Order: sequence, then structure tokens, then C-alpha cells
Amino acid sequence: MLGKAKIKYIQSLGQKKHREEEGLFIAEGPKIIHELLHSVPQHVQDVYAVKEWLKENANHPHQHSFHEVSDAELERLSQLKTPNEVIAVVTKFDNAKTIATKGKISLLLDTLQDPGNFGTIIRTADWFGLSQVICSEDCADIYNPKVVQATMGSIARVNVFYTDLVKWLEQQNEVPIYVTMLEGKDVTEMAPLNEGIIVFGNESKGIHQEIVQLANERITVRGKGKAESLNAAVAVGIVLSHIA
Amino acid sequence: MLGKAKIKYIQSLGQKKHREEEGLFIAEGPKIIHELLHSVPQHVQDVYAVKEWLKENANHPHQHSFHEVSDAELERLSQLKTPNEVIAVVTKFDNAKTIATKGKISLLLDTLQDPGNFGTIIRTADWFGLSQVICSEDCADIYNPKVVQATMGSIARVNVFYTDLVKWLEQQNEVPIYVTMLEGKDVTEMAPLNEGIIVFGNESKGIHQEIVQLANERITVRGKGKAESLNAAVAVGIVLSHIA
Repeated sequence: MLGKAKIKYIQSLGQKKHREEEGLFIAEGPKIIHELLHSVPQHVQDVYAVKEWLKENANHPHQHSFHEVSDAELERLSQLKTPNEVIAVVTKFDNAKTIATKGKISLLLDTLQDPGNFGTIIRTADWFGLSQVICSEDCADIYNPKVVQATMGSIARVNVFYTDLVKWLEQQNEVPIYVTMLEGKDVTEMAPLNEGIIVFGNESKGIHQEIVQLANERITVRGKGKAESLNAAVAVGIVLSHIA
Repeated sequence: MLGKAKIKYIQSLGQKKHREEEGLFIAEGPKIIHELLHSVPQHVQDVYAVKEWLKENANHPHQHSFHEVSDAELERLSQLKTPNEVIAVVTKFDNAKTIATKGKISLLLDTLQDPGNFGTIIRTADWFGLSQVICSEDCADIYNPKVVQATMGSIARVNVFYTDLVKWLEQQNEVPIYVTMLEGKDVTEMAPLNEGIIVFGNESKGIHQEIVQLANERITVRGKGKAESLNAAVAVGIVLSHIA
């Protein structure tokens, strides 16, 4: 049985302010918890799970931090509509304070606010072997429970760095900057790149003009149908599959 | 002011059973309603909107079907966590009973159940000019409010056809079938196709074995990182961008 104070404490990590104070975040669901316990076990502080999950993970080396909860308790702890067997309290990652961009592909996100899309983009970047994503300060919080969920564990491998994009880009003199726009060079006609910063903007507002002005090239995903736009995460996947 | 019975009736369209009985579905939010009023106005039966939206659309030719609602009423009508200015009751589209596959690219979805992903896939298919998506009967319902939302209006342009996939595929003798798997020919090495049925499966369970056996070729999106899998909608976007 979990005490009321403990439940309140874990619930509070749903809010950014409390995550920042505590240096902790919540991950939910068997898939991501499995991934975190596998790749960054030292970060997993406490695991709260229902009996079935505990049975399946009975011989896990990390089980000193496992706690059994009832379905009702899980529901109270969860930030999701449909709680899913297990929740963990995890210590935040030490994301680098500086980011090197020479000789590699980096992703830069301007005002990407939808948590599901943001997390899916981190997952997609990881799939293509990118180690870092640079974000404007008004992007979704990487430790937002919905973002964590959508990264499917990639949160443990991709360095997410929040900064003032214009100032930061002005310091990347020698690395070419590509902005994805509705008009530009068709990505299907581009050769794979060894180096570059690829910028994606907000789905409805696009990329800030000051950033567009810093770009070396505009690129686009050409459509043939009548749809007005592509989902942001889908666009990232398409661009990376052609140039990364 | 909306009567209680009317509110209950509109709410009931959140359930598949009632949508089927009535031949109606609900669309929510300014973007998709704008799109539906533009491309299929004859399908938009009634529009329930807050004052601000009505003001912005004051001279709309379809305004005989517009009704003002309060924020509180909108919240009761909405299927979304965060209601968004406007809701419409829309008549279902006459999806074709048969599907021709000669000389074109068709998408086939096996047990794609996540509403957001399913809707995003329909939107992505539309972006690449595909006119039809064939689905197993256990895929998400195209008229589920979350699916409608995620299609961003593409629901009006893409013919979605539910059927028994194995039986249906066995009738497509001359059109090549491509299944997307974790192992297969790298899509980045494929030439664009003029004709083919591209099959995508459930994110965790993949494609049913009976369908894999009917395929002419296995294709894959090769990753370089450590992520275990790609989001289904992202995978569809990448594959279509290379072969469609």
C-alpha cells in the first residue's frame, strides 16, 4: 500500500515545475520501463507495478526498487487515460550543456509543442542514429509524461538541448543549415549529407523568419495529393530517410 | 441553447454503433471543419460553434447550418479533452464497395488500431496522392472522432475500405504485394513503383503470417540507431516518399 503523501509526490512529477525541483520524471508502460531498465538502470529510482508485471519480471536484477501497487493505486499515480501496468520514477539525464555539430547531422526543432509529435520525433531521430536534438525553449518538455511515452525509450539515448535558437545558430558558422519549408529543394533529389543542421518548425506556423534567414538551403517534401500539410513527425522521418 | 436530447444525440455519435445506425460522424476543430466545408459542403449537416468562430465565418455560404453554442455546451458535445471552437455533424462518405488496384499504389493496413496513427496514415497517404487505403476489419474506425481529427481533412478524399485482407489479397493476382518488415530490401534502394499494394502491420505484432506469405517482396526502413522500432505513421511516410 502506498501512503497518500507518496502518491501526491509522484503525481506532482506530472508538472514541469516539480520535475525541475526534484530532477526526476515519470515513465509509464511495460515497453519504455523495460527499455530504461535495460539501457539506463542506474537512472530508474523506483518502479510501481501491478502483480502481473512483477511476476513477469520476478528475477530482474533491479528488483530491489520494485513496489507492488493495486490497479486503483496505479490509476491514481498515472498521467495517462489508460494506465498500463507499471510506472517508474526516473532521474533526469545529464544533457550536455554544449553541442558539437561538426561532421554530423543534427536536428533542430522550432516551437514543436505537441507532446506526441515531439516524442515521436526524438524516437525517429534515434532510429536514424542522430545523437542530438536542439530545441527552442518553447518546445514541449522532453520530460512531459506524454513525450516520454512517445519516445518509446529513445529519451535515454538522444541528447535534447534547449536554447535560444537564433543565438545558437549564429555560432554554427561552418555547418550548413537546412530549413524544411512548403517550398524548396525536393528531398528526394538530395544526396545523403555528412554534416548539417536540419530545422523543422511548428505544424501550423512554420519556422521563425529569423531562422529561415540564417539557412543555407530550403528543402521540402513534395506531395502529389491535395492534403495541406504533413504531420511533423512524418516529415522528419521522410527527410532523415533521404539525407541522414 | 441546445436541448438536452440534442446534446445526447450528438454525444452518441462518439460511439461506432450509433454512427453506423445514423450514417453520421463528428468532426471537431476549425482546421478540419474548414476543410470539410470547402471540399465536401454537402456532407456537413450541422455546425455547432462558439461566437468567435461564427464571427470569423459570418459570410459563409453554408451558414444556414451554423448554430451558436456556449463554451459549456461545446464542452459537453466534444469528444476531445480540449474542445476547439467548433463541432460538425457530417454524413458519412460513400466508400466504394470494390477497389481497383491495377496501375496504382494502394496502401493496406493490417490491425492498425491506434486512432492517432491511423488518422495520420490516411493524411500521409493523401499527401502522396493515394486515393485508397484497404484495412482489416479490426483496424480503427475511420469515423472515430480521434481518427477524423488526425486525418486533418484527408478523410474526405481517401477511400477507406474494410475487408478480410487475406481473401481480398488472394483476388489481386497480378498486382505485386510488398510487406514492410524489420528485415527486407532497404526502401532507399528501391525505384519508384507504378503499381503495388504496400502492407503495413500493427506496431507491436507486425503483419499476420498469412499475409506475409502472399507477398512478392519484403521491404524495410533501415535504421542506424538503437531504437527498436519506428512509429507506424512515420514508417508509412518514409516508404511512400521512396516508392510512390
